[in-house]
Amino acid sequence: MDPKRRTFLKQAGVATTVAVAGGAGALKTEDVRAAGAGNGAQPSSPTMPRNLTLLTLRNGEAYSLGVKTERGILDVKRAVKALKSNAPTTMDALIAGGDQGLTDLVGRAVAGANAKGLFLEETNVDFGPCVTNPEKILCVGLNYARHAREVGQPVPKLPILFNKYNNALNSHLGTVRVSRIPAERFDYEAELVIVIGRRARDVSEVEALSYVLGYANGNDFSARDLQSRSSQWMIGKTCDGFALLGPYLVTADLVGDPNNLKIECMVNGEVRQSSNTNDMVFNCAQLVSYASKLMTLEPGDIMFTGTPEGVIGGYPKEKQVWLKPGDRLTTSIEKLGELRFSLA
Amino acid sequence: MDPKRRTFLKQAGVATTVAVAGGAGALKTEDVRAAGAGNGAQPSSPTMPRNLTLLTLRNGEAYSLGVKTERGILDVKRAVKALKSNAPTTMDALIAGGDQGLTDLVGRAVAGANAKGLFLEETNVDFGPCVTNPEKILCVGLNYARHAREVGQPVPKLPILFNKYNNALNSHLGTVRVSRIPAERFDYEAELVIVIGRRARDVSEVEALSYVLGYANGNDFSARDLQSRSSQWMIGKTCDGFALLGPYLVTADLVGDPNNLKIECMVNGEVRQSSNTNDMVFNCAQLVSYASKLMTLEPGDIMFTGTPEGVIGGYPKEKQVWLKPGDRLTTSIEKLGELRFSLA
Repeated sequence: MDPKRRTFLKQAGVATTVAVAGGAGALKTEDVRAAGAGNGAQPSSPTMPRNLTLLTLRNGEAYSLGVKTERGILDVKRAVKALKSNAPTTMDALIAGGDQGLTDLVGRAVAGANAKGLFLEETNVDFGPCVTNPEKILCVGLNYARHAREVGQPVPKLPILFNKYNNALNSHLGTVRVSRIPAERFDYEAELVIVIGRRARDVSEVEALSYVLGYANGNDFSARDLQSRSSQWMIGKTCDGFALLGPYLVTADLVGDPNNLKIECMVNGEVRQSSNTNDMVFNCAQLVSYASKLMTLEPGDIMFTGTPEGVIGGYPKEKQVWLKPGDRLTTSIEKLGELRFSLA
Repeated sequence: MDPKRRTFLKQAGVATTVAVAGGAGALKTEDVRAAGAGNGAQPSSPTMPRNLTLLTLRNGEAYSLGVKTERGILDVKRAVKALKSNAPTTMDALIAGGDQGLTDLVGRAVAGANAKGLFLEETNVDFGPCVTNPEKILCVGLNYARHAREVGQPVPKLPILFNKYNNALNSHLGTVRVSRIPAERFDYEAELVIVIGRRARDVSEVEALSYVLGYANGNDFSARDLQSRSSQWMIGKTCDGFALLGPYLVTADLVGDPNNLKIECMVNGEVRQSSNTNDMVFNCAQLVSYASKLMTLEPGDIMFTGTPEGVIGGYPKEKQVWLKPGDRLTTSIEKLGELRFSLA
């Protein structure tokens, strides 16, 4: 890596190291605060869960928390009732309030002699997006050098940040309804997703990963024709369902180094992207630190960290066959499982 | 206006007119749903309040709802207790759940003989952002022709959409702490803000304004050096406190035609921007319709509709004196009051 890049944050950042609360936006209404933590308090630095593979269960119109265990998927809501726990029962509450007895509950359920009814077969699970209510969905553009080159762009000297909104959130086994969208050039982008676990403002690269709750498999689904309609990419990135996320949110301790993970994307069984997160231009610590100097990051914020080479947009024009209804996509990232979704 | 522009949405939009629910992201967790409407239900088309000038009261760390009346600012939370009402007591709950007796409560409080303790002097009010928890903060770039020209850009043929995140939300009488931000070229952008009141997906221009709850005065505060650091403007737009909003959210019926409002920005008492919203390239109905074809809009989403000419970024280089700590700014929009804030 260019040694200049290693120190870019020092130049880009501010001098102060005071960690302070965010702007007015960091305040929540009483109702939302109560919802987040379940008790009216929303600590900015909750005790982050460890050693857990988390997921969101969809129950009709509602979401609740699941944990992948050796006995199957623990339905936390059922377990809380059966085992008389106060652990959080939604991903939102877990992220906002911290572990609060979840680890203990999982241990008791797994060890329990009569806990069988608390577990679901994973094949029967209806998944929600593994993060359901982020304040921010950050995305990083052109963050793999070979991808930047394949689309004819220079390798960036600083991270290029843009966004999706929460209408874009979508799930493992979800569907992107491309036929509803006024566009034609649909494309995939397999991406590692960072999930923030503690409020982060102006944090250094060295401490940045200590603010990360965990990681998820993601696909920054894109409509290239909308993306290039103006100078701003957003409308090609935030159509309904364009932020695929899951199946799991794996806590950071289980992942270890996020910048040495195999990452792949397949379309109808054919491998289209195959790379490693060690090819990122700016690594995860640099990205979190950089963003935290520009805006206060909150627990639950997520960041799509960029895609490796192999997207359709990078093909020679005569070989560009855009995605269409009926296509089935799979994104695989080492340690994070397989995210599968389809188009309609 | 170019007649071509009047029909641009037909070309840009999709053919279908089916109004359907959004993607997976439209689902909320149980907790958030309960918080929003106060009763576990979050209708996508709440009965929008009318004939009200609404505001957010800040009480220490919490926000609650206020209504501007001839007797002063009604503290809705106090009124609900005193007058035994079930009306919503936060802006979030009002937006998510609809009027739910608020209009009736206001009428009773204003008429009440012993209601004096329910009203605050406006000069004593501590304001919050008049919308506190939008799913989306949409922004429109270069939407006044003379502004596009002053910054050397072509007048857009389609709206240019970008975003801010909720960390940027800030209030009337708020402070933007520019000295914490790693930038130097701070600039103002007086803007009319649209607040969405009903879920909107693929709506026509003709029906678009019926999805609008109301309007607010806004300032799309910007750091030009961050904005131009990459091709994507976002990081220059979403630093903490950069989305000034208020003092009021005025319901749409009280505003009438949003595209005939005087709009001004002053810095330390000097008029810098003075225009009218009738100079927008794409009017409010076109903007809402356009965005709704690209993503599902939810109640509470807000849209900064672009700024008229007169920004510092449009001055000749030798006359560009950027904003600095200590500066006091005022944005005035006809019928929407005066938004005042300062820099530190």
